[in-house]
Parts: sequence; structure tokens; C-alpha cells
Amino acid sequence: MSKTSKLKIIPLGGLEAIGMNITAFEYEDSIVVVDCGLAFPEDDMYGIDLVIPDITYLQDNADKVKGFVFTHGHEDHIGALPYVLKVLNVPIYATKLTMGLIELKLAEHDLLKTTRRKVVRAGQTINLGQFRVEMIRTNHSIQDAVALAIYSPAGTVVHTGDFKVDYTPVFGDAIDLQRFAEIGRKGVLALMCDSTNAERPGYTASEKTVGKAFDTIFSEHGNSRLIVATFASNVDRVQQIIDAAYKYRRKVVIEGRSMVNVISTAQELGYIHIPDNTLITLEEMKNYPDEQLVLITTGSQGESMAALSRMAGGIHKKVQIKPGDTIVFSSHPIPGNEKSVSKVMNELYSKGAEVIFQDTHVSGHPCQEEIKLIYTLVKPEFSIPVHGEYRHRVAQAKIARFLGYDSQHIIMLSSGDVLEISDEDGGKAEVTGHVPSGGILVDGLGVGDVGNIVLKDRQRLAQDGIIIVVLTMDSDGNVISGPDIVSRGFVYVRESEELMDEAAEVVYSAIEEAIGRKGGEWSRIKNAVRDELSDFLWRRTKRSPMILPILMEAE
Amino acid sequence: MSKTSKLKIIPLGGLEAIGMNITAFEYEDSIVVVDCGLAFPEDDMYGIDLVIPDITYLQDNADKVKGFVFTHGHEDHIGALPYVLKVLNVPIYATKLTMGLIELKLAEHDLLKTTRRKVVRAGQTINLGQFRVEMIRTNHSIQDAVALAIYSPAGTVVHTGDFKVDYTPVFGDAIDLQRFAEIGRKGVLALMCDSTNAERPGYTASEKTVGKAFDTIFSEHGNSRLIVATFASNVDRVQQIIDAAYKYRRKVVIEGRSMVNVISTAQELGYIHIPDNTLITLEEMKNYPDEQLVLITTGSQGESMAALSRMAGGIHKKVQIKPGDTIVFSSHPIPGNEKSVSKVMNELYSKGAEVIFQDTHVSGHPCQEEIKLIYTLVKPEFSIPVHGEYRHRVAQAKIARFLGYDSQHIIMLSSGDVLEISDEDGGKAEVTGHVPSGGILVDGLGVGDVGNIVLKDRQRLAQDGIIIVVLTMDSDGNVISGPDIVSRGFVYVRESEELMDEAAEVVYSAIEEAIGRKGGEWSRIKNAVRDELSDFLWRRTKRSPMILPILMEAE
Repeated sequence: MSKTSKLKIIPLGGLEAIGMNITAFEYEDSIVVVDCGLAFPEDDMYGIDLVIPDITYLQDNADKVKGFVFTHGHEDHIGALPYVLKVLNVPIYATKLTMGLIELKLAEHDLLKTTRRKVVRAGQTINLGQFRVEMIRTNHSIQDAVALAIYSPAGTVVHTGDFKVDYTPVFGDAIDLQRFAEIGRKGVLALMCDSTNAERPGYTASEKTVGKAFDTIFSEHGNSRLIVATFASNVDRVQQIIDAAYKYRRKVVIEGRSMVNVISTAQELGYIHIPDNTLITLEEMKNYPDEQLVLITTGSQGESMAALSRMAGGIHKKVQIKPGDTIVFSSHPIPGNEKSVSKVMNELYSKGAEVIFQDTHVSGHPCQEEIKLIYTLVKPEFSIPVHGEYRHRVAQAKIARFLGYDSQHIIMLSSGDVLEISDEDGGKAEVTGHVPSGGILVDGLGVGDVGNIVLKDRQRLAQDGIIIVVLTMDSDGNVISGPDIVSRGFVYVRESEELMDEAAEVVYSAIEEAIGRKGGEWSRIKNAVRDELSDFLWRRTKRSPMILPILMEAE
Repeated sequence: MSKTSKLKIIPLGGLEAIGMNITAFEYEDSIVVVDCGLAFPEDDMYGIDLVIPDITYLQDNADKVKGFVFTHGHEDHIGALPYVLKVLNVPIYATKLTMGLIELKLAEHDLLKTTRRKVVRAGQTINLGQFRVEMIRTNHSIQDAVALAIYSPAGTVVHTGDFKVDYTPVFGDAIDLQRFAEIGRKGVLALMCDSTNAERPGYTASEKTVGKAFDTIFSEHGNSRLIVATFASNVDRVQQIIDAAYKYRRKVVIEGRSMVNVISTAQELGYIHIPDNTLITLEEMKNYPDEQLVLITTGSQGESMAALSRMAGGIHKKVQIKPGDTIVFSSHPIPGNEKSVSKVMNELYSKGAEVIFQDTHVSGHPCQEEIKLIYTLVKPEFSIPVHGEYRHRVAQAKIARFLGYDSQHIIMLSSGDVLEISDEDGGKAEVTGHVPSGGILVDGLGVGDVGNIVLKDRQRLAQDGIIIVVLTMDSDGNVISGPDIVSRGFVYVRESEELMDEAAEVVYSAIEEAIGRKGGEWSRIKNAVRDELSDFLWRRTKRSPMILPILMEAE
């Protein structure tokens, strides 16, 4: 094997939107994959539950794939793994908490037994074919997050994962800036850095600042029942709420399936400390007065079936919102969720509750000064902005330019691009090909059986509904039953009798004419019904329902 | 008529969300209606174009209605008028620009000839039955906005409309605070004040501050073609962009149908000053170098068919975005539009353009200090927060409490409430009834023919599609054709043959069994198909498509 082979970097997702992070690193006979996340469906992906990456390229090169390495335990980094493992069974590597959260998923999909997995600590290095991968401690909105130094014969790539610089984290130590510096000193070919907050100037505040805000809220609302909504996976946030509860002598209830799961995993693995006699069950709540209770719950994004949304909507079986309650949103709406969050707030207010939605959240991603810091420690030859929409990655590219990188050394990739990169001659990088990428839609138990055609049909059905015209003919081409017209989602038929009667006449005459001409081939009849009816309805209503003629032949 | 009659205040919309503002004031035989706005559909109102208020109460009391009075020309205050005038032809009153914008709508609906209309200036008072209504100059994000003092024998109500306090407006004078004070001195029964920004501390900045930001942008982007997106109706904003263009010797193109309409109306009526030789057409653009051009366009909210979105998507016929272009979003995303705006930005960036989306927008609504100022000038006996979601109105109620109002004097209404109010005995206010209210859905040419049942069908169709089972029987109950199964929006059938074959078997056996038992009543057969097929599909796919069995009888 020649030492002049190039390193290939192939992002299979994560570069067009936040979500579905997965990147393959390939050197000769070895492929290492970083992360395997899902994306949540776009607004026009009706009925879709989640979106997973297209891993055709990995399946086609299955013998090369040495394993998946994970940066942290968020859904957009681990969520697609169960689906992927079913078609590509390779070993997985992650830090302890990340592995704990992955195992929750594997258990649900009955994959625990068949998956080889290894827990790796920050600071450790693993050998994967021609690669060595070192895990470097970072900070993020979930514990045990790591950046990766990916060593290949063609050079070293530093992948930050999702991170922030938190000098005073709630749990564990600050990001290992010294190690970033050491690796940088030795020479780094490329830096793949988180772009999420690259549009924001300054620094992201420490998670500890949120603790102070909780202290104030707890001390100022001594007579209220407190309900705090936050992200299920933000264990440090939950820790701080529990700390405040302990200080102010409140009992804590944890509500919402995903939060209960994450917190019990975190507790088992030692990532959260809950003092004895602090946690109580929902059922025990009735034994305590309001001012001795705090509920920590899911639903901070207004998700329709989450616990807080059910409380706000009055359909939670065990918690009724009432005047005197104070609800704290310890979160910021993810873009697209603003209206749902507002709806929940309105419902809470209308039940007489107080709502607090400021000062109790900090981001888990780096702002501009933190990004500059990492660049300055790592000093890569190439900048490859990752993790974000195009606008976020452009914002990181601007920072890189500001730091002196020229456009040849800032690489804007698209998912599916094959970037070949090496440290020869002071560094070369070129996109040399493209592999299949893009989202596979998951709807219920179906993976990939809903594609563009089905989605377009759903969009059309949603817009104007459907009109079905059924007709039975005998083998001589005589109509023996129908045409019957049935509609759904078009108009309220009982109040639109006149329109529907006229529509029936249009259908009758279209069929009569089509049968009359040329003996009435079926396709001709169907087209005539579709065209005439759709013209008529557009003229009368300016709507375009789907028109579905069904012709049957009697035996 | 007894002087002890009460004033009724009946909001028919506008209190549950931003939009659909319309309030009836009734005293004995007289009703005056303030505003007649539309709302844009919620996300789950598939296929709906807009929502208008239910005016059953006004139709039932048509002989009392003396007229509609408008506070300003925004869609959420005038947009439903053409629909309402078709069923309730009464005179309308508005300031000059507001009337100009109303007339654009009336012309489209062919209502100009049949509508009695009167232009009223700020400072003037009109007599409407037992009411006198005075128009008071305010500031807003559209010119010629007014508050109303509504004088009745039972007392005076001040309705602010949408307003801000702008000491240095671009066009015309600052809000007439002296007149608010004078009216307040004489005694005001109730204040109905704009709540939109009541959660925000401080003051809303003057529109003039935006002019300075434009100056900076124009001076720093001397080599770019500039494209500025803003709200079509914000004439002052367009004025300031034109002023900057003139100063920096750029020609101006106005693009987007609604903006062209509003600006030509504003120009005709003298609300905007465009220097000679400044405006050019889209076609003339090619005669000028990029650095001598500025395009002012619609699409600042990412609306899919607006001009900027078409440019960003590469489907605008006459403008292609290219590297070197600078696009300025002179707007803030309205909640719910964040993702659409982001999508447009990403598309612009990916075409190599520069995007600026900060510092070029100010709100048109009052923040907390402005609300306190108006309360302090008007000193009403009762506070009735209007214009906003519940959370915004709660925020205003908090301000009122902070100013010393007790809960008896802060009235939180719901749309449809009949509030009876009078100044007897130091003021009495009580909700004494409820009238029909809520949104009427407009879909294409249909007004009100899409209701909850149709919407629910559309939602279900969108979620999982539809499966149609057709069967023809003779009069003896023998199957003579079918069952045929057709699906749309469920799965991509060609790739799910096995599933669909099994589904067909489930249908066959359900029909056979149902026919066998008790001679097969039709409803029994239909129910059997629906139940068995839906069970089968849920088990196999965890999806619930709409199942529509159609039975036909052969003649």
C-alpha cells in the first residue's frame, strides 16, 4: 500500500439542516463512521415519523467498515443507529453515557445481543483498521461529549462533534483545550467544527449560570407548585433543578417517558446525583402541599404528546394545571417550534398559571469567539464547517476567512460529496465524486416505503381532498352500475348538494361521450372523467382535489 | 330611551391569536363595528387560504349596524371586509391611505360601486347613530393609523388600534398624545389597548433608526446589487430605502404584486415621495450595472410564492441571484415563519449571495413603557387588553396591575363575549352573554364550505393516505365485480406488492364472511372491510390510512 493514498471524507448527512449527522472517513481498506443520527421530518413530510440517512455507500463497502464512533448521545447523532445496524452490523464505540443511551435504543429494537460495543473514555485512542481515533473531552448540553482526532496515514482530522467551551461545567471537567493544542502543534490536516451558533457573536454562557437563575426562581416562588420543562437529555440541567429543589426542600417528580429513561440511565451510570428522599412518584404528589413540589417534565418544545402539552391541554391523567402553579420553560424553541410552544403557553396562562420563559437556558453550541479559539488551538490546514444549515456553515466560513484562511482552504461540502484530502505539497483537497445520500423516510414500521410519489399524493390530498368516481361496466361496455361519486376532504357534501349534483352531471356526460366515441377504451373514459371534472371544479371552486376514476368490469 | 342603558362591547375575533380583528360596540339601537380583519390559517388547516370572522350577530342585527370604522390598512384589520360586505352592505369609514388600500380590495371583488365609503381625517369625529367616533392620530408600521375614541351615552371607550409611540416618524406627525390626554381628562370608561409587544420591556425604536441602518448598508456595499425584502404595506420603510438609493445614486425596482399595488396607491395619495428618474422597471434593470441598482421586494417572510422566494429558488423569470448580490431582510420573522425564512436564506447563500438580516427592522407595536404611557394619559376605569394571543394579553394585564388596577377592573374577554359596561356607580362591567364567533374558512372560492369534518378528513388523508375498496353486487347479493383495492398516499404500491396482496386477502375473507352471515347487509359488509383491513394494516405498518369501502349495486 502506497503512503501517498488520500484520505476520503464523505458526509452522508448533516450538511443541509441540523440533524442526521453521519460522516465516513475512508483510507484504503478502512472506513470509520462518525455518528449515525436521525432528522425530524420537515413540515411538508406528512405522516413521517423520522428521517434516517441513506447508507448505500457503506453497505456497498461493508467489508471496509471498521466501526461507528459516536461523539455524544443526542438523537441527531445516535438516533438512526438501530435502523442502520439491521443492515450493517459493525462494532460501535462511545463514551459511557453515550453508550448507555444507545443501549436504551438497541434494547427497544432487540439489537443488544447482536451488537458488539465498546465503551471508550475521553483521552483514550482506539485502533480501527488504518485509523486511530482519539476521544477528546468537550462540553455540550449532554455529558460525556467528545471531539475526535482521527489519525490516518494521510494526516489528522479533528472533528469537534457538538461542543461548547464551558470553564465551569456542572458535571466533570472543562473541555480539554490542552489536548486540542497538543494535537494542533503536531499538525492537523482539517478541522470539522460545529456551525450551529456561528452566526452569534461572543461566547455561550456556562451551564452554571442557569443554576443561579433557578435559585432566584425557587426563592421568589416559594408558594407555587413549580413545573420545569426542559430537554430530556440535558442531565446537568435536571441536576441543577434537583439541587435547587433540595436546597428549598421540595420533592421532585420526573415526568415524561424519555426523561424518565434518560435520568434513570444517568443515575445508574453515575452522571447525576439525586439526594435520598428527594425523588417521589407522580402518585405520591398528593401527599405534599404545592409549595413542597417541583415537577421536571418533557414538553419544552410544545411537542403535542409530551407531558407538559398534555397538562396544558387538560388531558394529562395525573396533573391538573391550576392558578398558583408556576411553569418554567428551561429551553429555547428550536426553529419551527415557536407556534407550538406559544400554544402551550397560552393554554397554561388561560388555566391561571404563571409562565416563566426567560433566563433559564443556555445553548450547547459554540458562538463565534469559541470557534475562533478552537481554530487557533488546532490550526488546521483546511476548514470544513459542519453541523448546521448552509447559513450557519457560511457563518463559520466567514470566521475562518476572518482568521486568515483563503477560499482554497475553506471547504463547503454537500452531503454525499467525496472529498479527497492529503497533506502532500502543503495540502490538497478536492471533491472527486459523489455517493448516494439524502433521507430515507420512516413512517410507522415502514422504512423507505414512503417516497416522493406517496408524499406528493399526501400533500395533494391534504390540500383539497379526493373525489372518487366509480363505474361498473359489463364486458360489452355497457354501464351496469354507477357512476357513483364519493368525496373526502373536499367540501362538506351535505351543505354543497348543488355543487355535487352538477359535478355528477359533468361526470355522466363525460362518460357518455367517451363511451360513444370509439367504443370507449377504459383509459379514455378515465381521462375524460378526470379532465372534465377537474375543469368544472376549478371553475366553480378554484380547487384541485385529486380525482380518482375507478372502472370495474362485471364478471 | 333611558340614559341608564349599557354599552355592549362584543369582540367577534382577535382575542385568541394575532389576526381577525373585529369588535362591535352596541348601544340601544346602534352598532358600530371597529375593523374587519382576516386571519391566516393555522398549520393544521390544510388547504385553507384565509379565515374570516363569523358575523352572524351583525347579520341578525343588520338594521342596527351604522357602519364599519377602520383603524389602519393591514390585512388583519381590513382583509375580511369584501367577504362581509357581500352579506352586510353598510357604510365604511377610514383615513385616506387606509381607504385607498380597502378600495384595492373592493375593486378586486367588484364592490366599489355598491359600497358607501367616507374618508375621515385624524382629528375628525363622525356620528354613527347614538355613537360619536373620533379618530386620533397614532404611529404604526403603516401610515394613517388611528386610535378611536368611541363616545356613547354610557361612557367613552378608547381603542388604540395597532400603534407605537414614534416621536420621529418618517411621514407625518408623532402620535397625538395631547389628544389622548384631553380625552383622558374628561373621563374614559375603558381602554382597549394593543397587547402584541406587551411582553417586551422598554420602548419600540423609531422607524427613523432603520434609515440610519440602511445608510450604513448602502455605503458599505457600494459594489453589490442590493435586494431589500420587506413588508409590502410598510410604505415608510420603502420610502427610507428609496431615500438611501437616491443618496447613493441607485435606481430602484419594485417587485412583487402586493408591493407594487400598495406603493402605487401610496404614491397616488401622496404618502410616499419618489424622486424623478429613480424608479425603473424590471425590464430596464439590464441597462444598469449592479452597483447602481436596488430591488425592493416582497418575500421577507419566506412566503413560498413571493418574489424573493422565487429568486432564491431560481424560478423567478427576470431576476437571477448571483455571487456579489447582497440581500437585506428588513423584517423579523412572524412566529411560525422562521423555517421558511431560513430556507430562503440558505438558498440565497448557496447561490453565493451575501445576506443581512439584522438591524433593519423595528416593530410597529408598543412595548411595556409605551403601554404604561397610554394608560397614564387615558386613565380608564377599565382595562380591556386586546390584539394578541392570550399570553400577550396577560402581559398587558400584568402591566395594568402594576399600574394599580385591581382584577375587577381588568377584563380578559374571549371572542364572542358580550361585555356590558357603564359608568354608573363608579363603573360596572360584566360579561352577560355570548354570540357566535370563530373563524369561517375560505378555500378558493368557497366561503364556509370547509368545516371541521372536511379538515379532519384532510388531516387524516395527509397523515397516512387513503385505501379505497370497491365492490359491485347484483340485487341478489352476489359479487359480480371486485373487490378492487386502490390506494393513494399510503405506500408506494410497486414496492409493497406483498403487503398489498395480503391486504387484498384480508378484504376477500372479510367480505365473504360478512356476506355469509345474515345475507350481508351493506353496512355490515362495509364495516367488516373497514375493521379487518384497518386491524391488519395497523399490525403490519403501524399506520391508519382512511379506509373507504364503496359498494355498488348493478342495475
